[in-house]
Parts: sequence; C-alpha cells; structure tokens
Amino acid sequence: MPAFPFTAIVAQEEMKRALLIAAVDPTIGGVLVFGDRGTGKSTAIRALAALLPKIRAVAGCPYSCSPDAPAADCPHCSQGRGKTHMIPVPVVDLPLGATEDRVVGALDLERALTRGEKAFEPGLLARANRGFLYIDEVNLLEDHLVDLLLDVAASGVNTVEREGLSLRHPARFVLVGSGNPEEGELRPQLLDRFGLACEVGTPTEIATRIEVVRRRDAYERDPEGFCAAHAKSEKALQKRIVAARDRLGTVSVPDAVLEAAARLCLALGTDGLRGELTLMRTARSLAALDGAETVGIAHLRQVAPSALRHRLRRNPLDESGSTARVARAITEVLPQ
Amino acid sequence: MPAFPFTAIVAQEEMKRALLIAAVDPTIGGVLVFGDRGTGKSTAIRALAALLPKIRAVAGCPYSCSPDAPAADCPHCSQGRGKTHMIPVPVVDLPLGATEDRVVGALDLERALTRGEKAFEPGLLARANRGFLYIDEVNLLEDHLVDLLLDVAASGVNTVEREGLSLRHPARFVLVGSGNPEEGELRPQLLDRFGLACEVGTPTEIATRIEVVRRRDAYERDPEGFCAAHAKSEKALQKRIVAARDRLGTVSVPDAVLEAAARLCLALGTDGLRGELTLMRTARSLAALDGAETVGIAHLRQVAPSALRHRLRRNPLDESGSTARVARAITEVLPQ
Amino acid sequence: MPAFPFTAIVAQEEMKRALLIAAVDPTIGGVLVFGDRGTGKSTAIRALAALLPKIRAVAGCPYSCSPDAPAADCPHCSQGRGKTHMIPVPVVDLPLGATEDRVVGALDLERALTRGEKAFEPGLLARANRGFLYIDEVNLLEDHLVDLLLDVAASGVNTVEREGLSLRHPARFVLVGSGNPEEGELRPQLLDRFGLACEVGTPTEIATRIEVVRRRDAYERDPEGFCAAHAKSEKALQKRIVAARDRLGTVSVPDAVLEAAARLCLALGTDGLRGELTLMRTARSLAALDGAETVGIAHLRQVAPSALRHRLRRNPLDESGSTARVARAITEVLPQ
Amino acid sequence: MPAFPFTAIVAQEEMKRALLIAAVDPTIGGVLVFGDRGTGKSTAIRALAALLPKIRAVAGCPYSCSPDAPAADCPHCSQGRGKTHMIPVPVVDLPLGATEDRVVGALDLERALTRGEKAFEPGLLARANRGFLYIDEVNLLEDHLVDLLLDVAASGVNTVEREGLSLRHPARFVLVGSGNPEEGELRPQLLDRFGLACEVGTPTEIATRIEVVRRRDAYERDPEGFCAAHAKSEKALQKRIVAARDRLGTVSVPDAVLEAAARLCLALGTDGLRGELTLMRTARSLAALDGAETVGIAHLRQVAPSALRHRLRRNPLDESGSTARVARAITEVLPQ
Amino acid sequence: MPAFPFTAIVAQEEMKRALLIAAVDPTIGGVLVFGDRGTGKSTAIRALAALLPKIRAVAGCPYSCSPDAPAADCPHCSQGRGKTHMIPVPVVDLPLGATEDRVVGALDLERALTRGEKAFEPGLLARANRGFLYIDEVNLLEDHLVDLLLDVAASGVNTVEREGLSLRHPARFVLVGSGNPEEGELRPQLLDRFGLACEVGTPTEIATRIEVVRRRDAYERDPEGFCAAHAKSEKALQKRIVAARDRLGTVSVPDAVLEAAARLCLALGTDGLRGELTLMRTARSLAALDGAETVGIAHLRQVAPSALRHRLRRNPLDESGSTARVARAITEVLPQ
Amino acid sequence: MPAFPFTAIVAQEEMKRALLIAAVDPTIGGVLVFGDRGTGKSTAIRALAALLPKIRAVAGCPYSCSPDAPAADCPHCSQGRGKTHMIPVPVVDLPLGATEDRVVGALDLERALTRGEKAFEPGLLARANRGFLYIDEVNLLEDHLVDLLLDVAASGVNTVEREGLSLRHPARFVLVGSGNPEEGELRPQLLDRFGLACEVGTPTEIATRIEVVRRRDAYERDPEGFCAAHAKSEKALQKRIVAARDRLGTVSVPDAVLEAAARLCLALGTDGLRGELTLMRTARSLAALDGAETVGIAHLRQVAPSALRHRLRRNPLDESGSTARVARAITEVLPQ
Repeated sequence: MPAFPFTAIVAQEEMKRALLIAAVDPTIGGVLVFGDRGTGKSTAIRALAALLPKIRAVAGCPYSCSPDAPAADCPHCSQGRGKTHMIPVPVVDLPLGATEDRVVGALDLERALTRGEKAFEPGLLARANRGFLYIDEVNLLEDHLVDLLLDVAASGVNTVEREGLSLRHPARFVLVGSGNPEEGELRPQLLDRFGLACEVGTPTEIATRIEVVRRRDAYERDPEGFCAAHAKSEKALQKRIVAARDRLGTVSVPDAVLEAAARLCLALGTDGLRGELTLMRTARSLAALDGAETVGIAHLRQVAPSALRHRLRRNPLDESGSTARVARAITEVLPQ
Repeated sequence: MPAFPFTAIVAQEEMKRALLIAAVDPTIGGVLVFGDRGTGKSTAIRALAALLPKIRAVAGCPYSCSPDAPAADCPHCSQGRGKTHMIPVPVVDLPLGATEDRVVGALDLERALTRGEKAFEPGLLARANRGFLYIDEVNLLEDHLVDLLLDVAASGVNTVEREGLSLRHPARFVLVGSGNPEEGELRPQLLDRFGLACEVGTPTEIATRIEVVRRRDAYERDPEGFCAAHAKSEKALQKRIVAARDRLGTVSVPDAVLEAAARLCLALGTDGLRGELTLMRTARSLAALDGAETVGIAHLRQVAPSALRHRLRRNPLDESGSTARVARAITEVLPQ
Repeated sequence: MPAFPFTAIVAQEEMKRALLIAAVDPTIGGVLVFGDRGTGKSTAIRALAALLPKIRAVAGCPYSCSPDAPAADCPHCSQGRGKTHMIPVPVVDLPLGATEDRVVGALDLERALTRGEKAFEPGLLARANRGFLYIDEVNLLEDHLVDLLLDVAASGVNTVEREGLSLRHPARFVLVGSGNPEEGELRPQLLDRFGLACEVGTPTEIATRIEVVRRRDAYERDPEGFCAAHAKSEKALQKRIVAARDRLGTVSVPDAVLEAAARLCLALGTDGLRGELTLMRTARSLAALDGAETVGIAHLRQVAPSALRHRLRRNPLDESGSTARVARAITEVLPQ
Repeated sequence: MPAFPFTAIVAQEEMKRALLIAAVDPTIGGVLVFGDRGTGKSTAIRALAALLPKIRAVAGCPYSCSPDAPAADCPHCSQGRGKTHMIPVPVVDLPLGATEDRVVGALDLERALTRGEKAFEPGLLARANRGFLYIDEVNLLEDHLVDLLLDVAASGVNTVEREGLSLRHPARFVLVGSGNPEEGELRPQLLDRFGLACEVGTPTEIATRIEVVRRRDAYERDPEGFCAAHAKSEKALQKRIVAARDRLGTVSVPDAVLEAAARLCLALGTDGLRGELTLMRTARSLAALDGAETVGIAHLRQVAPSALRHRLRRNPLDESGSTARVARAITEVLPQ
Repeated sequence: MPAFPFTAIVAQEEMKRALLIAAVDPTIGGVLVFGDRGTGKSTAIRALAALLPKIRAVAGCPYSCSPDAPAADCPHCSQGRGKTHMIPVPVVDLPLGATEDRVVGALDLERALTRGEKAFEPGLLARANRGFLYIDEVNLLEDHLVDLLLDVAASGVNTVEREGLSLRHPARFVLVGSGNPEEGELRPQLLDRFGLACEVGTPTEIATRIEVVRRRDAYERDPEGFCAAHAKSEKALQKRIVAARDRLGTVSVPDAVLEAAARLCLALGTDGLRGELTLMRTARSLAALDGAETVGIAHLRQVAPSALRHRLRRNPLDESGSTARVARAITEVLPQ
Repeated sequence: MPAFPFTAIVAQEEMKRALLIAAVDPTIGGVLVFGDRGTGKSTAIRALAALLPKIRAVAGCPYSCSPDAPAADCPHCSQGRGKTHMIPVPVVDLPLGATEDRVVGALDLERALTRGEKAFEPGLLARANRGFLYIDEVNLLEDHLVDLLLDVAASGVNTVEREGLSLRHPARFVLVGSGNPEEGELRPQLLDRFGLACEVGTPTEIATRIEVVRRRDAYERDPEGFCAAHAKSEKALQKRIVAARDRLGTVSVPDAVLEAAARLCLALGTDGLRGELTLMRTARSLAALDGAETVGIAHLRQVAPSALRHRLRRNPLDESGSTARVARAITEVLPQ
C-alpha cells in the first residue's frame, strides 16, 4: 500500500514545515511533535519519507553508506566497497518492546554459536542511517534510551561498548518523536536536545474534520487512485526540497539576523547557545526552501516558535504557556 | 464440546451488536467489553467465532494466509505456496502467564541448539491472524503488552526486533478484551485505541436470570442436543454476516452523516479524529448488517455509545458517567 | 503412615460438607477454607482423598487419564494407550517455593541437553489431574499464580505457552485453598472464582478441645490402630459418596428452587450469575448425598452460606460480616 | 577445638530447659530463642549437640539414615543399604548468604555438565536430618525461607519441585532460631509454628557477669582442660536425656492435665489447638526428664511460658508483655 | 573532522584554566565542570586533548604504556616489550548505557568460548590510561560507578575482581565530569574527591553570544580552514604546557603559602586535608604554567575557587552560594 | 612505591593505638574507624601492615597457611604440604563493585568449562587469611555483606554454600572498616560486632595541618628517602609489637579489673557481655604493648572509649554523644 501523500495532509502547517526544514538540513537535530492522538503524526513522517527522492547506497552495506561519501566510521565500507543501488529513504520505527540490543545492535549470536566468532549484528540505529527514526510516544520511553538516541543523532555515530563489543558505525538520521503532554513530560535536559518542537491539535472546524475523514476513507478504499490524484503536487514539493538542499550552502545569514536571534534567546532566558544555533540553521533552511539567498527577520519569526518553545525555563511569575511566551518575545524583540 | 450458540445468549444486546459489527469490518479495531464477572463475555466471543464460516488457508502456513490474498509480509507464502485447506476462524486466548516471547514469537531454540540456525518460532500473534485474539482481564495486563497488541492489531503486521531476529509477519485480527472497571483502569491512551467499547451487566430481572441459568445447565448436560436446537438461528445469522461483508464496499455514507458524526465528537470534545472515523465505519458496518445501502442517522445513533464512550475526557464539572454523557450529546446533536 | 480418618475429625461441619459436595460434583469449582491455623484444614483434605475409592488410570500416562474417557487433550493418550492400573485419588500439595515452571510444567532440560529435543516435562498441574490440588496459605500466593490455577481448574485444561512450548493437557482437579483472613485477603475477582468458601474456627468448648487433642495423640502414637477403629464409618461414607455421584445426573431442580436462588442473589447483590449457578449445582450435589431425587429449598438453605459469602460486595452501610448478611438474606427470602 | 560444655553455661535456665525438652522429643517443633546479642545462644546449641550420644547411620547415605529405621522417603536407602558407622549428631548452620538451592538441594551441575544426567545434589536440609538446624538472626531471613524450613521441620520431609527435579527426602531435625526482637519481628503465622519460644537476657548481677567472662576466657585459653573439668557433669546430663527418651513412650497424661492445658489456652485466646498439643508434649517431655511416670500440673506450669508466649494475639487493652500475660493466666487457671 | 581549537573557545576562562592545570599535573585529580547545557563543555575537553603533544607508547600494549616508564602493574609490559609508536593523547568517552563490564574490563568471551581460556578483555579504563576519561552528565551516573572511577583515577590502578578474574592494570587518567546542578547533585563524598570544580554559564553579552555562534558555524562549514587559522596560537599554548610540565618538579612552595592554604581551609571548615593538598598542587601547577619558580599568594588566590568550592559544608546560617563563600574567605584570609 | 611509614603519621593517636592492639591480639575483632574523609585512614592501615614482620607460609597454599599451625579447615594443607616461604602480611582491599562471588570465592569457571570439574576458586577472604581486610566506606556496603564479613572474621572460617559448592577454609583476619557517620550509619547489630571503634577528625591546629601536608608532599616527591628517614622508629615499633605478642599469653587480669569492666558495662547498659570480653582482651593487649605483666585499671581507662562507644543504646534522655557518655561513665565508675 503506497504511503498517504504528504500534500494531501489537511492543516497541521507547523508540523509540516518543521519536517520539511529537517529534511533539508538534518543537522538541525530531531523534531518533537506534541499533541492529541489521532491527528496524523505518524502518517506525516511516513508521507515525508515517501516524498523524498531515492538515495544511492553501497550494496550490502548494513548502514546504507553513500558511495560518494562513505562514513569514515563505516566498518563495512572502510574495507573497500563494490556495487551500488538506489533505495528509498529509510524510515525506522522503534517498535514498542524493542530491546536495547536491537536498537544499538548486539553480538551476533548465530555466528557466536556456530563459528565461535564475536561479530556485530547491526540494530535499528544502523538501519536508520541517512533516514528517519520515528518514536511514537517518546515520553513513555525510558530516559536513558532517549538520551542514547539523542546522543547518536547529534554525533551521527553509534558507539557500541557492550557484551565485549567495541565499535563505531555511522548513524546519521533525523529523530522524530511524537508524544502526548498529558502522559508525562520529557525532562528539560532531553527537551533541549531536540532541534524543533511543534504542536498539533484536533481541528475544531466541522468542514476540516469532514475533509480529513473523507480523505482518509478515500485513501483506504483506493490507495493507488488517491495517490495518483496527488502525484503532481508531490512531485513539485520534492523538487522544492532538492533545490533547497542545493542552495543551503550558499544562503547567507546577516549579522542583524544573528543579533536578533541572540536578543530573542536572551529575552526568553534559554540556557546555553543551542537556541541561537538552532534559530540560525532553521531560518537558513526555511530561506532555502523559500528560494531566498539571504535569511531575513521574517524567516526567524516563522521558525522561532518551533525552535524555542521547548527551551524555556518555567517562570513561576508567568503562567502563560511557552508558545504564548515565545510569541510575546517575538513581538517585543522583533517588531514588524 | 461444541461452543455455546451465539443466538442462545440471553440479553447483552450491545455486546452482541459490537461483536457482529467487528466481524463484518475488522478494520474498526478491537472491542472492549467492560462489566461484571460471570456475565458470559468469553462465552460470547467463542460463540461468535464458531458461528463464522470456515476460511480457506494455505496449508502449512503458520499465519493461515488466504490463498487468494496472501499477505505481502508473510515469510512463508512469499516463498511460493502449495495446497490449501478449510479451517475454523482462529480464536486465540492470551493465557495468564503467557510470556512475551510466546505472544510475539521468538527464536526457535530447538533449531538453534540442534542445527545452529537462527529461525523464528511464530507466537500467538501469528496464530491469531485472520481471527480473534481474546484477552480476559485486559486491565490486568501490563501496559506495554496492551500497547504492543494494539499496535499489531492496528497495523495488521507483527514487527519482531528481539534476540537477533528482525522480521515482519501478517497479524490481522480482532482484538477483544474484557475487564472489570473496578480492578484498575486502562490509561486513556490505550482506551482510545480500541474501536468499540461496550458495557455488560448482571441482569436484574428474575425471569432473565433463571433463563440464563437454565440454558447454561441445559447446555452443560447435553451440549450436542442444545446446539442442534439452535442450529437454524445460527445458520440465519451466519448468512446475515456473510451478506453484510459482501455489501460493505457499496454502502455509502452521506455528507449529512459525516457532519453529524463530526458534531457529535465536537460536542463531546474527543481528542483527534478517531471518534469520527470509527463512527463512520461502525455505522456503515451496521447498515450492511441491516441490509441498507446508505448509512442513516439512526445507524449513527445506535453505534455512538459503543464508538465514543471510551474517548471522553474527564470533565470535573460533569459528574455523570460517560455513557450518560454520550446519550445526552446524541439527544442534543441528533434530535429525532 | 495412613491418613487421619475423615470420620474422626471432630466438629468443623461446614468444611466437611463442602469437601463432600465438591467430591461428588467437581464442576462446582474450588473450595476455600478460611480460618485459624491449627484447626486441621490440611488434615481434612488428606482425609477426604484417602476416603475416596481408587481410580483406574492408563499406565504411564503422566496425566493419569481414565481408560474409559481419556481427555481429548491428553498428549499421551491421544497417541494410543495400553495397560491400565488402579491408583489412589491424587492429592498434590503446592509446596512453598515451588517455581512456576514446576507448577505448569516446563521444558525437559535433560532431554534438551542430551538429545537436543524440545520435550515437555509435566508439572504439578499434570499430577493433580482427576484429584485435588491443595494450597496452604493461598492468600500468600502471588495473584497471577492463583489466577492461573483458577483458570486451569475452571477449564480442566492446562494451556502452556512458554519457553517455546505450546501444548494443552487435561488438568481437572478440585482446588482447595486454605488461608487466614488476617494475613491479607484475596482480591474479590479471585474470591468469586472459588465455588465454595467456608469458615473454620478454634472450638471453644473444653470437651471438644480435649477430644481433638486426645484423638490426635492417639493417632500419632498408633496410626494403624486408630484407623482400624474408624474403618467402618469410613467405608459407609465412601459408599454414600459413590451413590451420590451415580444419582447426580438424575436429580432435578424445580423452578421454585431456581427462582429462590435468583432472589437470594438479587437480595445480596452478587455480581454476574455465578452465584445462582453455584447454588444450583451445590444444592443438587447435596441432594444427591442425601439420597433425594429433587432439590428442595432446604438444600438451598444449607449450602447458601458456603456458596455465597465470598461473593458479596462490601456494603459501607452494613457493617455486619458476610456470613451474617447471607444468613439474614436467607431468612428474608426463604422463610421456613 | 571441643565445644563449650553445656553444663558450664552460666544462668539462662529457660533456654537450657527448652533445648533439653526438644532433644528428648523432637516432634515438639523448633525452638526460638529471643534476646540480646552476646548472650551465648549459638554456644548453647553447639554445646547441646556435643552432649548428645553419637548416632548410628548408614554409611554413604547423604541423609544419615538410621539403619534400624530408614526413612521411607530416603532415595538412598530405599535402594538397599550396606555398612553403618557412628556419627555425631549433626548441627547445621544456615550461613548468611546461603542460597536457596543450597538449603533445599539442587540439580547436581557437575553431573549435568559432564554426564548429561539430572541428579540431585542434597543441600543443608539433607545434612541436618536427625540433628539440628541452627539459624542465627532468624528474623532477618526472608519469610518464605522461614516458612519453607518450618514446613520441612514439621513434616520431616523435604519436597523438592524445582529445576526439573521432583523428589522427597527425609529431613527430621530440630529447628533452632535465634533473634533479636529489636530487629523486626517474625509474623504471627511463623511464630505460631515454632514449638517453644524462650527469652534470654544479659545478666544484671556483677558476680554472674564476671563468672561468664572468666569461664569464656578460661575455655579459650585452654579448651581441653576446661572441658575435662566438666566431663563428669556432661556425662550425667547425657544419661538423663537418654533415659528420658526411653521413658517418653510410657509417660501418661491425665485428663486433668489436658483440661488444664485447654483452660489455659482458652484463657489466653490462642488460635487453633497447637497450644494444647505443644503443652501436652512439652510437659510429657519434661516429666520424662524428671523421671516421672505421669505428667503433673507442676510440669505444665513450668513449660507454659515457653510453649505459649509466642501464640498470643495482641490485646490492645492489655499492654503487659506476653510473658507477663502467660504468667497471670497460669496464676488464675492453675492456682497452686 | 579535526577538533575545535582550544584557543578558539570564547570566554569560559575558569574552565580553560582548570583543564590546563590538570594537563600539567594529573595528580591533582579529576575536574568537574558544572553549568548550563550547550556551553561547550565537551568541546573544550576534546580541544585540550588535541592540543597536547603526541605520546610514545609500547605498540600492542592495551594500556598504551610509556616505553620509558612502563607501569609496574601492566600485565602486558611486565612480560617484556618490543616496538613503540607515537599516539595521540587518549580521550575516552563514557557513552550512555556503557555496561560496567565494558568500563572495568571483563572476561574475554570469545577466547573463553573458542579456547576455554580465562583471559581479560581490557575496558574503557584501560583505554583511558595516560589520557582523559570524559563523563557527560556525571550526576546521572550511578554513585557506585562514579565512586569506582574516582578510586581508579586516584590510585592510577584498576583492580579487577569479578567473573573469576583477579588482576590489576595501570589506569592513570584525568577524569573530567560535566553536569547540570539542576539535575540532581553528587553526594558530598564524591564531590570531595574531584580535584577541581568549575562553573560555566551562558554568556550574557550579545557580542559574545554572536561570536560563539559565528565561530561554531565557521568551524562546521570549513573545519580545516578554521583550524589552520588558529594553528599558531595552538602551537604556542602547547609549548607553554610542555614547559610547565618540565618546570613542575622544581617549583617551590614557601611556608607562607602553605600556611595561607591552611588558614583558608580552616576558615571554610573543609573536611580533612584534601583542600590544602589540592591548593598546594594546583597553585604549583599554575605557577609552572606562568613560568614562575616559586608559588605566590596570587596563585593561591586564582585557584582557590576551583579547588575549594565543592568541599564546603552547607552552612544553614549562610545562604550565600559556595562560590561567594570562597570569595569572601579569600578576601578575609588573603588580603591583597 | 613503599608504604607511608606508620611512625610518620601525625596525630590520630586513638586510631593508631587501636590498630596496634588489634595487631597484637587479632581475636579482639575488627576495628571501625569513623570520621572525616581525607584524614589518612587507609594510609594508616597500609602503614601498619608494612610495619609488621613477614610471615612464613606454605608455598602454593591459597590461604597462606602457617607451616607450624596449618588450619584444620585448610583444603590445601589438609592434603599434605611441602615448601614454605616468607611473605608480607596480607592487606586486602575490598574494591568498590567487587561481586559477592569474588569476596567469598566461587566455582572455578575455567576448570568447569575446560575440564568439567567443580573446583573452588578462592576469593578475597582466602587472600586475607592471616592479615587485614580493609573496607573503605563500610557503611555503604550492603548489610548482608558486612554481616557475612563479620561472621567470617569472628569464626576465622569461611563457610561456602553456593553454586553447588560446599566447603570451609581458614579466613582469620583483622577487619578494618572506615566510614563517615554522615553517610548513613551501620545498624546497631553490626556495630556491636566490631571489636573497637575509634574516631578521627581533621586537625584544627595550623601547625599540625601544615606538618601533615608537608610530610605527604615530601613522601610523594621522594618515597624512598622519606621512608629511610623513618626506618629506625619503624623498626623499634615492630619490635614492640613482636614482644607484646610473645608476652600476651602470660599477662594476667586481676579480678578487680574484671569487676571494673563489668561495672562500666552495667553503668552504660550495653547488651550482652561482648563489652566486658572486649574490654578484658583489649586492656590485656595494651598491657602487653606497654610491657606490663598485669592489667591495671589505667589500661582499662585508656581502651574503654574504643571498646564501648559503639555498644551504647540511644538514650533519649541523654543527648550527649556516645564518646561523652563513655567518658562520664569512666569518671564515675573508675575514679582515679
């Protein structure tokens, strides 16, 4: 069954923009999507992956290395490599109940038992290289596993030190986590390590709701027909992403934008400088998507909520939510 | 001993309707039955399975694939397939104390030990494919296991990532869980993932109670005789189900019904759009059972309590139970 | 050392009657005996088993199947069977510290290690087939194990899904549990699944106490002599049980009795219809023991306390104990 | 180093009497010694064992069976037996950190690994057969292990159901537990299963204290010399124990004594009839030690504190300690 | 990708000084860096290691022993040694989820399985010998692991007593831990064992913030170019470190400095004499870095905050933070 | 690196005296040292061991048995013995994270795997025989492990009952534990089993502090030179210890001293008679060190604080610390 088309997703603009930005510049860090169940979060991530162009990979490499730029740490490709093939962008689900050894990789028991060799059996982190790792209900995962995933996502390398194994392999992926804030929160240290955080909600307009249900039903009754109807808009969006990636290296960030970003973070009192770094990269990625050559304050304004709302300290004197606080700071610091 | 006949079950109309609806359209999701012990919940699910026509399956396939539409993910049938045979609809009990490896499937130890091969030994999820998975006292199961079962039920695929195994196999089944609300509740995130939820209670009329006891005693003393006496009504109900399945694809859902469903959910403040999607499918399935070609508001009215009562948020200002709240919303939104 | 004779047990009439009723009709479900320590609970269950006539069993069958009616699920007898022999009714103690694998049965390690075969090694549930399973201090057992035992006792089948094993074998037994209510209670869901519940107490009359101590001392000093002195009364009681079993199928239950049972349960507000079903079966079994051909209200009156006292909900407005509440309901509903 | 002589123990009369009584009639059940640390509890038990005459045992039997009366359950002797030898009465310490498998016995790993056989390796319970099992700080042991030890001590049989093993072997021993009531208490159900309970305290007279320290120092500086000095009194006490054992079977218990025992228990409200049974046996054992042919009220009076103080229920209206309550009941019920 | 240059790090002077001091005299003990996330803590430690000159090591020695001064405890070099090579100063990260056996080293499973030998497989402590061990979020590590790491760091020897292994190997390294005081604190006993503790914060000046972001971006876009631009200042700092190490043995500590250190510790009430010892060594190391031949009070004044702030007891009457209390004591005890 | 000389330790007189007393008479039981970190506790124990004369041991015996008096329980020497050699007094550290199997000893896995034999691999308790076992932060160890160590220390025998092993071996050592009372206390039952308990504190005089730091620095800069400077005083102290050991057997304890010890314990209300026994032995050991032939009240006065301060019950009416309470009792009971 083909994936639901990205361009057929009704509403949820902030989430869609955050995913596109991360697809253009994966160094922005993971995307966190918070909100009600049943609002199409996992549909969107699958839709995005299906939209991206296929990638060329070294055949047989369990980490799907690119033949043009194999990872220095790849245990497979560092030993020479042969044929290549085109594969879809990987999307790996962290299934509930996946054990840590399957995430990180582990001793290959079959070879240990039959040949007495200590070989590594790659896990989900290996499979996610160059793609997406999706965790539904990330707030239900144990902290140490989230921490580990964020570490790997940040460094692009999975360092394995367990069961007598000691190795590193490439693991560059965009981490996408979804969760429901009513089910327990991530601790601030983890929140801060996600690049972007966006909120989704149940639509409140009758017409929108009917449209969602109608599209969902149409898709389920005739997936191929439904996808064919959206093929043109999908193609257009794919081209826009590819163009943005090409342009990204040349988009400039004027000092005024850097200063505005710094003022915004200072006004909100975010810890460290991750806020500024993310603002700069996110605005640059958005500018690239927009076809701009220079980042403008308007880009900053658009991405600031996603880039900052999860980095605020609780202010006991300010009971307004973090989205409102970011909005207010934007108004004060970046007057139009 | 033959199963107790479905049509010999006294009262409990809501539960019987929900089971029939799910039998016609399994994509509706699992059925949750809440209520007192000793009210025949497990009898009903066994009765329904016995009532359904046998299915044709690929012989030797541990997932009982249909020869006409083998699952793309079937590790057995994807390697070619041979003979077929007729089998009863599977009903799998999750016995208390079943270990996770037996539910999900696990490494086949015998082959690992004797032949040094890493083979998969299918578990209960494999056996439940195309049938029913019944969990008594679902609220006593650990959350992560319920979550896992709901994930598999929703996707129809069991993704195994453990003990060095990494595979997928088809696992399409109707999950039926029963429980007693006094013994601890399921958390809202799990509740919301069941398609339908119905309540059963102890009958309060003397005549009904005597009738239940009498039928139970008659059945236990002479199972074959008792079943023979109900064979005709069983056959009739079977035909009705088969007809409804055939008709399901052509039953239309008018916009007025979709709008009514949306208004109902909005009035009740359910999260996301699962409420609407379930209402639409459930009403369509009921229409098919009724032999109707179009879904009407009356169908919606009948299925709304089962489809929505487990999706309400707690309203601290409204102390009435969720069944009452759904009923009130129906009265207000869908006046007759 | 021969068992203490059943007919030499002083007082404790309710417990003795409940055990006899269950011996005549094992489908009544387990018997729960609550009360002080040191009141001869385990003595009574051993005494009853010693009293029952030996049974004929298939030689070599680990489940002691009857040659006349082998269980359909017996893995041994379903492969053909040979000689038979007479064996005493099994009484299996669940020793403290028995591990779950020994209760349920487990992989036969010896065969796995020496022959690489995955064979089943039957556990205590297998050994208890056609007899009694006795659990001292049942309220100290973990809930999930009690639940499992009750499940098996109710279905007569032990379903094993663990360690790569997947099989069923017959396990029909009367579960007898004893406990002390001061040591923590069973949760209501478990209580409700026992057929009968009776109370034993320390006798308060000096003469009775001396008689108990004297008999105990006499028995311990000369077991054979003591048993010989009670041989005649033992034989008579055995004949009465055998006759009751023969008669059980023909004892009728008039509508008036069914209605009285329903009224009693309604008055006490028991959940579900297990109360009525148990009342009907228990009264029938008592009638059979009494040599009656029809169940009367008097039979109902005698068995009601054992059949119902563990099925009451706590009534915060009625502080009287459950035994008193059942007695009051009998007086009101079944006036003599 | 020879054991400290029993007759050289200063003071602590109640403890010494309780140990002698249990040595004469082991069916009385275990002895519990409560009190301050450093008061010679473990010295006393070792002293008693050294005092008892050697026993004749089947050579090679891991359960030290008597050749005259081998246990029916002995897996060794039930297969024929050969030579015999004299051995000291076993005293087994339950060392801190002993694992359950070493207590109960376990699979013999060496034979399993080298020969693929499933053989039983006897544990501490096997070694304690016909002797003493001593547990220091019994109140720190886990409840389930105490329960298990009391079960075995009561039945004289160790039933093993674990690791695929299923066997029984004789394990008749006197369980002696010591503890400090300030370190957490045994639960009433466990207390009740010990036959006797006595209290020891730190002597408060200077002369006694000096005498204890002096004897201890003398013994440690010259063990052989110290023991030689007490050899005669040791021999005399040994003869008294042997004579008491011979006489035990013929000591009679008049009805007046039984009635007095019953009245005493009734006055104290002990649960069940263990109190009476223990009083009868303990008084009989003391009478045998005293060379009497009939038990008298005076014997009852002496043993009642040890036999009953651990069987009292807490009486919220009576704040006096259990020793005082027993003393008061003796005064009221058995006036001199 | 080359490491970020140490001399390109903006601000954070205290942290940089502490790292340089520990690089000159590793016997000072570990360095603890507390402060906001995203302030470049892990960048700094990597930068320092890249700055240090390569070291000569015995080829094949898993502990990287120096050929000039092999550790007496080295299991490899104590058996003779051959060739040598130059290697970078090791920097070992303790990855999240590293198991204790990988930290300490463990039984070499491969050799145990294939050759039946009990060989040691060195862990992270072995790899860190002569370099740095970096722990991010040290306050989230379990206490016993931190304790173990500090023990090894203090003694320079890893003592392994586990899995039947018993050996010692050299493990001299500078332990660098970073943490966030808002995420739970280390207990005082652990704090006290770190040599130095410094605080880092988010810069509050716009210009500094922009400079950090700009440098970070420049480095990420063109690592080689960025490093080349800082090569000269890096080389100069390296020379300064090497010179300081040479000079360290001859720097003298006048009595007045020792007395001042003692007065400072007395004024602050630090436990034990670790405060003085660390002050003396740290000031000496700083003097060596400064090219001085004698330690002066000014050196003491500079290092006192890092050397003492984590050794203060909580003073309930003095609510000021520990940094302020050290500053006040310096003012009082060491007036300029 | 040679150990720091015992005679170069500044101050801490009570601790040094307690260690010397235990070195002369190891039957006194362990020594507990409580106080601030960084006060040289572990230095002192190592210094003492280095000071003691070497001992002659059976070569190859894992328990270092003396050839003159091999332990009866030695599994090695009980099978005949050959050569002997001189070895330093063992000092065994219990490293943090040592597993119980390495402390107690365990199954020798290598021999089990390669030869199928069940052999014992001695642990740290074996290695400590005839020497010292040092536990830093004894109050952080699990209670059951402390209890086990005290049991072994008291009996001089390690009884192993685990993993199918059942053996005893000699394990006579002085247990020295250090701890910080602010980090949680040992429970009274454990405290009471240590022979002596002393307190150490941070010196408060500037001159002393400078002297400690100066000596420490001198030692670390030139260990050999530092030790040479103290060789003479070390030799003298060694002679004094050896002489005291020889004299110990002939030092007499007059009745007046025993009575004074008893009065002291009575006044302080210590449980049991361990207080008196320890006082007697400790005073005797001190007398032997002093070259006296008879124990005097003055000896008692000196050792009483170390021997008794950890045996006091908490007195809610007396808030003064235990050291103060012992001092007061000495003043009252032993007026000079």
